[in-house]
Amino acid sequence: MEISKDTVLKAHARLHGKLQITSKVPVFTQDDLSIFYTPGVAYVSNAIKEDKELAYKYTMKANSVAIITDGTRILGLGDIGPEAGLPVMETKAIIYKRFADIDAFPLCVASKDANEIVRFGELSSPNFAAIHIEDIESPKCFEIVDSLSKKLDIPVFHDDQHGTAMVAAAGMINAVQLAGKRIRRLKVVINGAGAAGFGIASLLYELGVHDVYVVDKAGIIYKGRKERMNRFKQRLAAITNPYSVRGTLADAVCGADVLIGVSTAGAFNSDMIKSMAAKPIVFSLANPVPEMGYADMLKAGAFIAATGRSNDPNQVNNMIGYPAIMLGLIAAKAKKVTYGQLAVAAQALAKSVKSAGRESIMPDIRNKAAISSTFTGVAVAVATAAMSEGNARFRVSAASVRRNALKRLSMGEKLVRLSAELR
Amino acid sequence: MEISKDTVLKAHARLHGKLQITSKVPVFTQDDLSIFYTPGVAYVSNAIKEDKELAYKYTMKANSVAIITDGTRILGLGDIGPEAGLPVMETKAIIYKRFADIDAFPLCVASKDANEIVRFGELSSPNFAAIHIEDIESPKCFEIVDSLSKKLDIPVFHDDQHGTAMVAAAGMINAVQLAGKRIRRLKVVINGAGAAGFGIASLLYELGVHDVYVVDKAGIIYKGRKERMNRFKQRLAAITNPYSVRGTLADAVCGADVLIGVSTAGAFNSDMIKSMAAKPIVFSLANPVPEMGYADMLKAGAFIAATGRSNDPNQVNNMIGYPAIMLGLIAAKAKKVTYGQLAVAAQALAKSVKSAGRESIMPDIRNKAAISSTFTGVAVAVATAAMSEGNARFRVSAASVRRNALKRLSMGEKLVRLSAELR
Repeated sequence: MEISKDTVLKAHARLHGKLQITSKVPVFTQDDLSIFYTPGVAYVSNAIKEDKELAYKYTMKANSVAIITDGTRILGLGDIGPEAGLPVMETKAIIYKRFADIDAFPLCVASKDANEIVRFGELSSPNFAAIHIEDIESPKCFEIVDSLSKKLDIPVFHDDQHGTAMVAAAGMINAVQLAGKRIRRLKVVINGAGAAGFGIASLLYELGVHDVYVVDKAGIIYKGRKERMNRFKQRLAAITNPYSVRGTLADAVCGADVLIGVSTAGAFNSDMIKSMAAKPIVFSLANPVPEMGYADMLKAGAFIAATGRSNDPNQVNNMIGYPAIMLGLIAAKAKKVTYGQLAVAAQALAKSVKSAGRESIMPDIRNKAAISSTFTGVAVAVATAAMSEGNARFRVSAASVRRNALKRLSMGEKLVRLSAELR
Repeated sequence: MEISKDTVLKAHARLHGKLQITSKVPVFTQDDLSIFYTPGVAYVSNAIKEDKELAYKYTMKANSVAIITDGTRILGLGDIGPEAGLPVMETKAIIYKRFADIDAFPLCVASKDANEIVRFGELSSPNFAAIHIEDIESPKCFEIVDSLSKKLDIPVFHDDQHGTAMVAAAGMINAVQLAGKRIRRLKVVINGAGAAGFGIASLLYELGVHDVYVVDKAGIIYKGRKERMNRFKQRLAAITNPYSVRGTLADAVCGADVLIGVSTAGAFNSDMIKSMAAKPIVFSLANPVPEMGYADMLKAGAFIAATGRSNDPNQVNNMIGYPAIMLGLIAAKAKKVTYGQLAVAAQALAKSVKSAGRESIMPDIRNKAAISSTFTGVAVAVATAAMSEGNARFRVSAASVRRNALKRLSMGEKLVRLSAELR
């Protein structure tokens, strides 16, 4: 069904937005108030004063995530300001609740200055178990994520980088297996060197895929390139393109096994796909209009194609990724997010797709069993990796993460359904 | 019932805190997601990009309040840090939801620097219809509230100042009436020149009570005093103590009609009360241990006594005040909070107590009808005052504010009950 502008605006105006804040405990009787308000709450405050880490035990901190944006790269709409970013962040937060019973709150910051945004993140950190950076323009987003990660002892999760990379890599793992190729032997081309391109290249490196080429508006990125570089592209140059090949997107694609677009509408053409190796795998993830349409990719000879669109098969959608990654981080009370965690998460996501086929490399988010399997698999993988890396505050068994994830999946759904029905 | 430390800690640990975030809309079907997530939400973002004020219409901004503290004056516990302040702020937020269906979120800031806290408030403002400042040490709290109010076009509500003053003044209005005294003729002594003392003195001035004496550790505040002054105490000196009287608390109290303590446990004694005018009114609002116990105040001759404690009659509790004031501000999409609004709010609160008596000058918060009457009365008074002052973005009828307030009271209760029962 095509949804009209009028329908969307009316649906958003009816209740003034979508997100709300409520209680997990009753506050009705005098006893309730004595326990949860004065005088009782003073016992809790005093305990935390003596040991700050107890905030994880006694307060919402353990389960809270700040979704921080400055509104400079909202969806495909560009720099539209923090207020205009809010409706998007509200839904991001709702998806956290619905899939993971995580309490995420949007903070749309009225400054575009990287240092100010970093400081804002630091100042707000006492409340939160993790920070989620969303829809900030590149390369500023990298500076913010890097700097904030160094300053804080809670994970700074960058959805456009970490979330998208994890989900795209998972799809690629399944596609490559169906094509009968070995992942470490692949030649992969990534078009786009923004947050997603950087994330995918970094994650592929972690997964042992080293014959990777990242292409931006100035062509293939290589060590020593002068044009359109910054320190993050220099990092890309260091982990990709081992022989410092130069050229255009078309040059890079020639003979490639996998082509992933995280760039702009219409960036791919059939000649490119025809020039790829046998059984080419093509992901056109630009949103809302992909680099090439799903049907056109297949027509041009793609063995497996994928887009970010919900009405095509093989939707590469980070909705399925970020709540599960975050749950893994929260379960281990992690101190940081790493590509090591994302690598095992991508493998777990890929494996959770029970009967993967050319039109079903990704889990079907309309299928409850599929969601359960993916969601628990990813959460367990992330928590386990965080512990084995030494990035966890807390030791928790895989079985307990799994049990907790299932409980959260059902609680999130129940709570969203009930509170929406009340209105 | 006396609540044990163990009971309180266990109740807080069970669910890791008390506050949670959920949805007002369903996000289950593909259509739901197309409307509330991509691609639909882009219509909303684009509309707000063209006109920021539309954030009030289409996003959670219209109903959201940031509760900002730096943890320097949490309850009576002093400077215990932002993490230790979080459990208190969570309950403050729950009370907003339960009484007013307002979505308040705690932001416990990791800095004690006034300028940084002001900037933090500015940066977070795109999300919020109002900012609620809570439990920040004095006089820093005044600087923050003043400066932030000037910078923002949303109300900066200071609960310790505005909320406490409104509720205390309401109680005083009823007590004075029962004593058969005229409010403009009163001699009032306020012990304590922190946020509450400043707020009460400012509000009494607005209500036409000018024979007022504020006493701090250095004695009565007067124009030209050198000891323990700051620019906020200078403002107090300008609006109180018209003849620049000097002396101690005992000197000030002599012949006073009303004595209000917002200071420390045990600050009052019976000689002071015995030295007051006929039918003395004494409020001992220090928390958790008052300046003088309820029974002791009566024994010393108080005609009407009040404390902040829930187990005494006449509880002066800002739980009944701040959600209603905020609802009035939100209903008018107010740009600022003023003492003019608080003055009519105090009169409305006083009037809402149907059969006031010496042991019932305040509404009984366990009585649903009493809450309804108080809550709607205050909200209507604030919204109406904001409009008549020209501080409102929006014109709304008293009848509509009242209807809305009743709906919110019932929705808040239902939602908190349901979401608490789910766990």
